[in-house]
Amino acid sequence: MVTVQEAKELIYKERLEIGTKRVKLSNALGRILAEDWFADLDFPSYDTVRMDGIAINFNSFKKGNRIFKIEKVNGAGMPQATLKNEENCIEIMTGAVRPNGADTNIRYEDLKIENGTATVLIDDVKKNQNIHFKGTNRKKGDLIVPKGRLITAAEIGVAATIGKSFILVKTFPKIAVVSSGDELVKVSKKPKPHQKRRSNSHACVAQLAAMGISADSFHFEDNEASIKKQLTQILETYQIIILSGGVSMGKFDLIPKALESLGVEKSFYKVKQRPGKPFWFGKHPTEGVKVFAFPGNPVSTFVGMEAYLLPWLSDNLGKPKAKLPYVSLASDVTFKPDLLHYLQVAIEYTQDGKTLAHPRRGKGSGDHANLADVDGFIILPRGKEVFEKGEVFEFIRFRG
Amino acid sequence: MVTVQEAKELIYKERLEIGTKRVKLSNALGRILAEDWFADLDFPSYDTVRMDGIAINFNSFKKGNRIFKIEKVNGAGMPQATLKNEENCIEIMTGAVRPNGADTNIRYEDLKIENGTATVLIDDVKKNQNIHFKGTNRKKGDLIVPKGRLITAAEIGVAATIGKSFILVKTFPKIAVVSSGDELVKVSKKPKPHQKRRSNSHACVAQLAAMGISADSFHFEDNEASIKKQLTQILETYQIIILSGGVSMGKFDLIPKALESLGVEKSFYKVKQRPGKPFWFGKHPTEGVKVFAFPGNPVSTFVGMEAYLLPWLSDNLGKPKAKLPYVSLASDVTFKPDLLHYLQVAIEYTQDGKTLAHPRRGKGSGDHANLADVDGFIILPRGKEVFEKGEVFEFIRFRG
Repeated sequence: MVTVQEAKELIYKERLEIGTKRVKLSNALGRILAEDWFADLDFPSYDTVRMDGIAINFNSFKKGNRIFKIEKVNGAGMPQATLKNEENCIEIMTGAVRPNGADTNIRYEDLKIENGTATVLIDDVKKNQNIHFKGTNRKKGDLIVPKGRLITAAEIGVAATIGKSFILVKTFPKIAVVSSGDELVKVSKKPKPHQKRRSNSHACVAQLAAMGISADSFHFEDNEASIKKQLTQILETYQIIILSGGVSMGKFDLIPKALESLGVEKSFYKVKQRPGKPFWFGKHPTEGVKVFAFPGNPVSTFVGMEAYLLPWLSDNLGKPKAKLPYVSLASDVTFKPDLLHYLQVAIEYTQDGKTLAHPRRGKGSGDHANLADVDGFIILPRGKEVFEKGEVFEFIRFRG
Repeated sequence: MVTVQEAKELIYKERLEIGTKRVKLSNALGRILAEDWFADLDFPSYDTVRMDGIAINFNSFKKGNRIFKIEKVNGAGMPQATLKNEENCIEIMTGAVRPNGADTNIRYEDLKIENGTATVLIDDVKKNQNIHFKGTNRKKGDLIVPKGRLITAAEIGVAATIGKSFILVKTFPKIAVVSSGDELVKVSKKPKPHQKRRSNSHACVAQLAAMGISADSFHFEDNEASIKKQLTQILETYQIIILSGGVSMGKFDLIPKALESLGVEKSFYKVKQRPGKPFWFGKHPTEGVKVFAFPGNPVSTFVGMEAYLLPWLSDNLGKPKAKLPYVSLASDVTFKPDLLHYLQVAIEYTQDGKTLAHPRRGKGSGDHANLADVDGFIILPRGKEVFEKGEVFEFIRFRG
């Protein structure tokens, strides 16, 4: 039996070989960036007029000129205009290039335009106003986004700005999700009185899909020979095996034996936590396959994915470690076992800026439906039995 | 010019016709549930043994019996066994049905098993211990998940448990995302000195994709006839049009005129906010198309999507309104214009359970790259110029 901290260290010691591939910009959302992005130009790439109105030379205004003859009209997308006479102006649109010889932009709202002439109606005009000068956002060559970033819509926009029509992203490992146990029937079947439906494997696959990762599903019957045969094939093909159930002390829990007979080495079995204590973790030393075998109760497997597998996977994909948020207990909790407790909670935001965690204990780790009523797990550490309202703990969020 | 509140009311008055469709469980992640889910059975559906060990009749233990002859071994997935003699036991595995005549489960750790006999090594055994009785999680017919829920991995697992291999979900509206302006070139092109790349439309499409919604992209040149032609087709095909740029006062801002000539009625133009003041919203009274025309600066369009379009869309899809979290300003901010201010911030979680918002103002609404450095927007209300460190405001998160 190891502590949660020891389990994490043993897991994080194991590394995946992660490749890269180039994807189209439109397919990059949700992927992990595998290259640094630099500004390919100054941004903005030209002195940009901010307001529809006129562009003038400030000297002329300063000398008292308020009436400017319009030399021409220039819009965004047109080549740079040139102000021939410093006393005149160019009528100009948002997004257009600052004309040669002009340095100041006055908006329509502060003008009267009549007979080819713009009259400035205000005295408060500042030199360079409403001009967004080249390179003031970013200089050519500046680092814009570092590798390891999860690509959100913001990064998609930035990628377009710097001309990235193809993006180098991390590839995802091949993952097999395995349910086991003769009591489990397909979702579409009506269970007999001693059966229930497979659900953990569906949840696991969805937890991975929420990270953009597709996984393949398998089911093992409680039969030693067939488990061994299926496992052999899976070990050859996949980098990660996620098992749910079949790893406790029962007579029909054949998986640990089968894994060991196929050369998978146990790294640890059992973690000082609830739910999910009988968590088995191991690896195949030559194939490099990592095996996460979670206990079969739905909440145990779910929390095992959220607390161990998904963050470890993100780490292997090069994502900077995310600090967990801290939330306040909304009511007292007593928990006596000497185990770290992942307590299911629903979240409430208060107007004073706190995040309250309302315990929703449910009926234990077998109570799958309870997960539909909560937002995540608050992490109550070992070495303490009474956790008081208002105390602050780390929080693993899976919803929202 | 309307206030943010007025703009929201005018937008929320407009409703979309949203249909439903049935998708496979494996395709339901991220969709909005269009049906209530009820327990189709009691959960658990049978009295379930929690621990590998033995099942006994507690009366026998109470009378002093500590040595139980093993009548048979029963595993999960096997039909219910029957304890023939109250003084004996059934050796039983986690997940198996409680045997007829047994009511209490003792785990291996508290037993010695030898020669077909189990000896109980402890005196602290409680009646019914380690039996998870039928229906204690949920009763058949209980509401498990209400319609309108965003389907996460937790709901996928729950759906599997209750036998939902097909899920009734909301369909998404057809959405056209339109960029405009002759200064904009394709992402793959190197812009000339008076050009820049299209980026807003890519970001908008990605913002929708993050909600699981696919949208089609269009680009309008600054040409009245071709704008009108393209708009005519788009109005016939789509329920929502998102425009970015082309709606300010400029001479080449042809879109509002084109929209009005095609029967789209303006609901409002300009909102008391920064960024994104020149936001135009309207609808086609007979076609039912809603038009969101955001100003062309990247941050303006991005915040317009996050603050208006996406929440309105969620609302139309039947999702319960999400309360925004409150976060604390990490430093003083002065903002003088009489406008609601969506200020870009990076988030930090502190150990006392607060969420700090670090202002990252960037270089204005044209500074697309700045979005890559922030997590969202803190909402600083109108009617105030100085916002002090520690003050708490609502927060729109787009990252994480």
